[in-house]
Amino acid sequence: MTDIPRPGRPAVLGQNQYGKAENRVVRITRNGATHHIKDLNVSVALSGDMDEVHYSGSNATVLPTDTTKHTVFAFAKEYGIESAEQFGIHLARHFVTSQEPIHRARVRVEEYAWERIGTSGAREAEHSFVRKGQETRLTQVTYDGDTWEVVSGLKDLVVMNSTDSEFRGYVKDEYTTLPEAYDRILATEVSARWRFNWTGDAQEAPDWETSYEETRRHLLQAFAETYSFSLQQTLYRMGARIIDHRGEIDEVRFSLPNRHHFLVDLEPFGLENDNEVYLAADRPYGLIEATVLRDGREARIPADLTNL
Amino acid sequence: MTDIPRPGRPAVLGQNQYGKAENRVVRITRNGATHHIKDLNVSVALSGDMDEVHYSGSNATVLPTDTTKHTVFAFAKEYGIESAEQFGIHLARHFVTSQEPIHRARVRVEEYAWERIGTSGAREAEHSFVRKGQETRLTQVTYDGDTWEVVSGLKDLVVMNSTDSEFRGYVKDEYTTLPEAYDRILATEVSARWRFNWTGDAQEAPDWETSYEETRRHLLQAFAETYSFSLQQTLYRMGARIIDHRGEIDEVRFSLPNRHHFLVDLEPFGLENDNEVYLAADRPYGLIEATVLRDGREARIPADLTNL
Amino acid sequence: MTDIPRPGRPAVLGQNQYGKAENRVVRITRNGATHHIKDLNVSVALSGDMDEVHYSGSNATVLPTDTTKHTVFAFAKEYGIESAEQFGIHLARHFVTSQEPIHRARVRVEEYAWERIGTSGAREAEHSFVRKGQETRLTQVTYDGDTWEVVSGLKDLVVMNSTDSEFRGYVKDEYTTLPEAYDRILATEVSARWRFNWTGDAQEAPDWETSYEETRRHLLQAFAETYSFSLQQTLYRMGARIIDHRGEIDEVRFSLPNRHHFLVDLEPFGLENDNEVYLAADRPYGLIEATVLRDGREARIPADLTNL
Amino acid sequence: MTDIPRPGRPAVLGQNQYGKAENRVVRITRNGATHHIKDLNVSVALSGDMDEVHYSGSNATVLPTDTTKHTVFAFAKEYGIESAEQFGIHLARHFVTSQEPIHRARVRVEEYAWERIGTSGAREAEHSFVRKGQETRLTQVTYDGDTWEVVSGLKDLVVMNSTDSEFRGYVKDEYTTLPEAYDRILATEVSARWRFNWTGDAQEAPDWETSYEETRRHLLQAFAETYSFSLQQTLYRMGARIIDHRGEIDEVRFSLPNRHHFLVDLEPFGLENDNEVYLAADRPYGLIEATVLRDGREARIPADLTNL
Repeated sequence: MTDIPRPGRPAVLGQNQYGKAENRVVRITRNGATHHIKDLNVSVALSGDMDEVHYSGSNATVLPTDTTKHTVFAFAKEYGIESAEQFGIHLARHFVTSQEPIHRARVRVEEYAWERIGTSGAREAEHSFVRKGQETRLTQVTYDGDTWEVVSGLKDLVVMNSTDSEFRGYVKDEYTTLPEAYDRILATEVSARWRFNWTGDAQEAPDWETSYEETRRHLLQAFAETYSFSLQQTLYRMGARIIDHRGEIDEVRFSLPNRHHFLVDLEPFGLENDNEVYLAADRPYGLIEATVLRDGREARIPADLTNL
Repeated sequence: MTDIPRPGRPAVLGQNQYGKAENRVVRITRNGATHHIKDLNVSVALSGDMDEVHYSGSNATVLPTDTTKHTVFAFAKEYGIESAEQFGIHLARHFVTSQEPIHRARVRVEEYAWERIGTSGAREAEHSFVRKGQETRLTQVTYDGDTWEVVSGLKDLVVMNSTDSEFRGYVKDEYTTLPEAYDRILATEVSARWRFNWTGDAQEAPDWETSYEETRRHLLQAFAETYSFSLQQTLYRMGARIIDHRGEIDEVRFSLPNRHHFLVDLEPFGLENDNEVYLAADRPYGLIEATVLRDGREARIPADLTNL
Repeated sequence: MTDIPRPGRPAVLGQNQYGKAENRVVRITRNGATHHIKDLNVSVALSGDMDEVHYSGSNATVLPTDTTKHTVFAFAKEYGIESAEQFGIHLARHFVTSQEPIHRARVRVEEYAWERIGTSGAREAEHSFVRKGQETRLTQVTYDGDTWEVVSGLKDLVVMNSTDSEFRGYVKDEYTTLPEAYDRILATEVSARWRFNWTGDAQEAPDWETSYEETRRHLLQAFAETYSFSLQQTLYRMGARIIDHRGEIDEVRFSLPNRHHFLVDLEPFGLENDNEVYLAADRPYGLIEATVLRDGREARIPADLTNL
Repeated sequence: MTDIPRPGRPAVLGQNQYGKAENRVVRITRNGATHHIKDLNVSVALSGDMDEVHYSGSNATVLPTDTTKHTVFAFAKEYGIESAEQFGIHLARHFVTSQEPIHRARVRVEEYAWERIGTSGAREAEHSFVRKGQETRLTQVTYDGDTWEVVSGLKDLVVMNSTDSEFRGYVKDEYTTLPEAYDRILATEVSARWRFNWTGDAQEAPDWETSYEETRRHLLQAFAETYSFSLQQTLYRMGARIIDHRGEIDEVRFSLPNRHHFLVDLEPFGLENDNEVYLAADRPYGLIEATVLRDGREARIPADLTNL
C-alpha cells in the first residue's frame, strides 16, 4: 500500500456515505387467519469516521453493507413494521447508537400498497392480495445522534383535469408561437416530499399512517378543486392545502412534469375537434418544481428530488 | 435502382407487416359537466401486396404510417371509443375495406384505467381523475376481410397469497437441493390473453366492457380461492374458471413469473422466522406458461406473449 | 383435492412450458494472468408430461425450476462457455436426455459484450473490463430429442443514415397529409433474429462466434450502403445480404421501429433549416417487420419477436 | 380569483424553477459529403420573479416552456453544437440576459455518442452511424447573470475487475456473518459528476471536448490500476487521479453501486468453483457515494446525484 496518496496531497475527501440499497422486505403479520402485509424497499446510508477506508483501504471502521442488509430483515422481525417512518426510525437509531464510528444514518423507504382480493366466499380474502399499483409511498429518516428529520412523500401519482385549466397572458419573445389556451387538459405525474416538524424524542411523534392518508387526500382534492391558470398555481394550491390542514408538516416540495395532451388538428379530415381527441405526448415536457413552506420555517428539502 | 436484388435471387420475402405503433390517444366524452375518459395506446399493423416496396423500394401500394396515425385520431372523433375492442374493429375494417392492396389488419390496444378523485365538494369530481395504475388492459383485433379474431387480456396485475401454498413431491436429480415447502408465499405478475369465439359480423358481438370486468373478477377469485400445490395448478384453475363462466371465451394463455419471496434465515441472529419476514427477489424467477382451452377448440394464441 | 376439475370437464390444457428465467451467469476463464469474460442471461423452458401438475397439482414429473438454475451454473463450470449457442446446446441436451418426462427444452440466452480497459501500464489490462453497452446478442436453442433449431440475433442496435433516404410515391387517401421527402434521416433500432440450417448432430456445427461477427457486419454494411426509398427496402437489403453471404443461415426476421427525426420548422424565427436540426421523436413510430428467407426454405421464426 | 390564498397566510413560496425538459435535438453538420452528429437531450430550468404565477396564476412574467423548447432548436441552428457545455452556456446566457424576470438559468444536457459504420466501400461511411451505447455524457450549466458553474460527468459506465480486489478487516457486530474475501470480482456502474473551476467570462474556458475524453480516460485507468481493498478506496483513487491530472476540475462526486457478483457454491454438485462461476445479482446492492475535491476548495455538488 506504499504508493497510495495520503492527505496532504491535492485531493481530499468530502461528504461520503455508504450502505446497502434496495432491500426488498415483505413482512406478514397474522391476526388469526387474517394476514396483513407491509411491502417495503429499504435503503440505508451511513456516514462517520470513514477517512481511512477511502485513503488507505483500511476497513477498521466499516460495518459491511451485508450487515446493514441483515439488520433490516432482523428488525422487521424484532420490531415489526408499524409504518415506514417508524421502521426507519428504529433502524437509524440502531446504526448511530450501536456503532461508534457512525455519526449519521439516513434510511429511505419505498412502500407498495396492497388491497384484499374480493372473493365469492369468505375464507380466502383473509390472505389474498392484489397490488394497488398506484403511487409509491416514500419516506426518508435522518438521524445524527441528536436531531431527527423525517421527510415523507409519494411519486408516480398521475392525475388529470379534463377542463377548468387555462394558459394565457404570458410573456412573448421572438421564439414564442404558442397560442393562448382557454380550455385545456391539465395532467401531471405528482412527485412530492413533505417534511415533518417532529425533530426529537421529547416531542410526540405524528400518527404516520393517518398523516399519509390525509396529506394524500388534501393533495388530490386541491388538484381537483383548483380552477387552474397555470401548473405553478395548481402546485402552490396543493402545497398550501397541506400546510393549512396538516400542522405536523412544515414544508412540501413538488416536481410536476406537465404531461402535455395536445388537441389533435382534425380539420384536414373535415372534422371539428371540440376538446374531444387528444394526443398524449412523451417528450419534451414542461417541468414545474417548487417548495411551499410554513411561514417563518426554513426550507430543507433539496431542489432536485431523487427517485428513491 | 439497377443493382437491387429481385426475386429469383436466393433471398425472398416472407411474412411482413407495417404500420404506426403506439398512438397515444385520449378521448374525452362530455355528459353535461360530467366527463368520461378513454386513454389508449393503439398500434396498427397492415399486410398485403407489399412485395415491391421490399424488393425495389416502390411505394405504390404503401399507405404511409403517418396516415394510419391520422386515421386512429380521426376515428376517435368519428366513432368515439365505446371499448378498446370495438374501436379496434372500426379501424381494422377500415384499412382492409378501403385499401385494395391491404389484405389484413391487426390493431393492438393498451388501455389505462382512470378513477374519479373524491372531492369535498361535488362540482370538481365531474372532470378530475387519478390514474388507477393497476393492470394494463389489452386487446388485439385481426381482420382479413372475412374473419375476425379478437384476443383481449391484461398485464402487470401483481397478486399474492400469503399462505395456502405448498411445493413438494417433485423430481430430484443430482442438481436438486431445494427443500420441500409446506407453507409458502405464492406471488405472481399476471399476464393473460383470452380469445373470443366471436368471428364474424353475422354473430352477435359480446359486451366487451362487461366481459372484461367479469373475466378479470373470475381470474382474481380463482387465484384467491385455490389452495395451491404448484403455480401450474393455480394457473390451470384460473383459466378453467374463465372457460367455465364466460361462454364467449374459448382459450386463455397465461405467462406467470413466480415472484419468489424467500423466507429470510434469522437464526444466526437468535431469531425465529415463523413465516413473517421475506426477501422479495428479482432474478432469476420461475416462469410458468400455459394455455387453457375449451374442449374441442383449437389453440391460436402464440406460446410467447409479446409485451404490447 | 376432491373438488379439482379433471379432464372431461370443458377446460383442457394446451401448450405449456416452465423453467427458471433470467439466470445471470458470469464465467471467468484465466489464461495465466489474462482473464476472459462471458456474461450471459440464461432462461430455460421445459415441456413434456406435465398434465397432472396442472390438473391435480401433483409434482411427480416436475423438475423444480430451482434445479434448472443450479444446472445452468454447474454447466458453466463443467463445460465452460465457448459461445452462447454451444452453451445452450449443452443445457437443452441435458434436460431432454436426462429426464424422461421432459420432451422438449428451449434455452434462451442474452449476451453482454465487454472490452478491455486501455491502461497506461500492461499488468492491469489483463483483468479490467468495461461493458461495451451496444447491442445485446441473443440466441435460442430448441431441442426435442431429435432435431435442433438454433435462432440467434441481436437487439438494441441503433443506427442512422443522415442522408441517402427518400420517401415518396406512396398511396394518398383522405387521411394523408404527409409531404413527400427527398432527403431525410433514416434511423432505427435493429431487432433481428436469424435461423441456422444446422439441425442435427450428424451435421457439422457452424463456428458460432465467427458467424455472429460476420452476420452483424453484413447487416450494418447493408444498412450503410443502401440508398433507401423506404425502410422496407432497407430491411430487405439487410436480410438479403445475410442470406447471400452466410450459407449457414436460412431465414432472417427483422423488427425495425422507424425512429423518426423530424426536421424542425425554424421559419417563424427567421432561420432556414437545411437538413441540420432535427427533433428525435419517441412515440408514435412506424414499425416495419418482415422475414427474408432463402428461396425454397420454410419460415419458422414467429412474426412477433419477443424481447428476451 | 377572489378565494386564492395570498402571502400573509401560513403557506409561502420557496425555491422554484420551471422550463421544458428533455428536448431531444439532433444536429447534423456537413463537411462536404462527410456528416457529423451531435445528439443531445436538453433540459432548461429557469428561476426569477415568479411569485405571482404561483400565488394568483398571473403569467405576466412567465416565458412559456414551449418557447424554451423553440429556443433550444433555434440555437442549435444559429450557434451549432461545438460541445454540450458550450451549447448550454449559449442557452443559459440567453435566458438570463434577454428576460428581465429571469435571474437564473440551469441547462442540463445528456449526450449520446455515435461512431461511423465501417463499410466495404468508402462513400457510405461518410454519413452512416451506429450509436455507441456505452456511457451517457452529462453536463449542467448554471448562470445567475454574474457567475457560471459548469458540472459535467457521465452515467451508466459499467466496469469490472475480475481479480485484485479484497474485502476484509471490517467491523463485526451481532448481525455480521459475511466471510472475508481475499479475491473477489469488483464491478460497478459509474455515475460521476465533476465541477470545473471556470466561473466567468474573463477566464479562458477549458477545451470541453478534450477535458471530457481525458477525464474519462483517467477515471477508467484508475479503476483498472488500483488493487482494491474496498470500493471506497477505489472511488477515492478514481477521484484523486482526476484532481491530480486535470487542473480545470476542482471537485468530483461519485455514486457507485456495488454490482455484486456472488461466487456460486457448486460443492453440492461435486464441483470446485475456483473463482470461475458467478451469479450477477440485482438487488440489494452496496451503494458507495463520496466527493473528492482539490484541497482548499469548497464542495458544491449535491450529495444525491439526480438521474438527468
